[in-house]
Amino acid sequence: MRVLGIDPGLTRCGVGVVEGVPGRQCKLIGYYVVYTDPDDDIALRLLRLDTELAALVAEHKPESVAVERVFAQHNVQTVMGTAQASGVAVLAGARAGLPVQTYTPSEVKAAVTGSGTAGKAQVTSMVTRLLGLDAPPRPADAADALALAICHIWRGGTKARIEAAKAKAMKNMRGARR
Amino acid sequence: MRVLGIDPGLTRCGVGVVEGVPGRQCKLIGYYVVYTDPDDDIALRLLRLDTELAALVAEHKPESVAVERVFAQHNVQTVMGTAQASGVAVLAGARAGLPVQTYTPSEVKAAVTGSGTAGKAQVTSMVTRLLGLDAPPRPADAADALALAICHIWRGGTKARIEAAKAKAMKNMRGARR
Repeated sequence: MRVLGIDPGLTRCGVGVVEGVPGRQCKLIGYYVVYTDPDDDIALRLLRLDTELAALVAEHKPESVAVERVFAQHNVQTVMGTAQASGVAVLAGARAGLPVQTYTPSEVKAAVTGSGTAGKAQVTSMVTRLLGLDAPPRPADAADALALAICHIWRGGTKARIEAAKAKAMKNMRGARR
Repeated sequence: MRVLGIDPGLTRCGVGVVEGVPGRQCKLIGYYVVYTDPDDDIALRLLRLDTELAALVAEHKPESVAVERVFAQHNVQTVMGTAQASGVAVLAGARAGLPVQTYTPSEVKAAVTGSGTAGKAQVTSMVTRLLGLDAPPRPADAADALALAICHIWRGGTKARIEAAKAKAMKNMRGARR
């Protein structure tokens, strides 16, 4: 299974492409960081991000896309930009007809380090080891995107299947209530 | 000038198309609300929004797109969805090669009511009057999108020109410092 992971960001958006099957060592295909200029108009920045992500999806032909879920944190204005970028990232996968799965930062950390509260250095260190790399991928946005892709492979699409089953059950329940 | 205004939202996204020139009565071309099902996957929802917005842009051929800027408010999870929708909205204009301008809610309110703190009812009432309609547009999301379009027409692209000039001046300054 080939997965394209996206760590969404407006100024720096990490993209990691990994191949593998659950429980086996994963193989690095490539990683990238898409930069957009903070001085540019938001429309230009989102357009550039969309264009670059579409090109990477077309180039690598992943079977699915994993995107980090965005939470409101300290810096509200940064979070708004990140959320807009994440919308564009999810859309890039959906427009290519691919299944898109989102993961919280702690799900990703737990998948690659065993701890949902692991630090950035630990995640980078484990990504380096899990992909059998000689040196850690730089910058950190790329490592996070690779961790997302590994997380998705190892969870083997389980989460997507559970979510789909849940959604179906809920729709049936509401249907029955009518 | 024909403007397509978008009041971004994930569950309900208002779209209003208005024609006019600064200082004259504006003409309503059409208004819409794009709905997506909260039970659906985020990827499906953003894809549907993208498809509908692209279709409305293609149908109405506006000269520019105005999108409401999103702020973090009380309900953080709703705001994240709204921000993702706003990213898709801005992108819809940019992908069609159109200038996209964002306005804060208070800029829009001030433009149509004279007060940046006007309530929803007052905005709807003014939109009805300014477009010479017999009845207020429903639902409110549509009225807000129409107010955005009117705001953009009345400000006559001034803001976009000022922003472009500012950005250029800043780039020149930094160039000179090197």
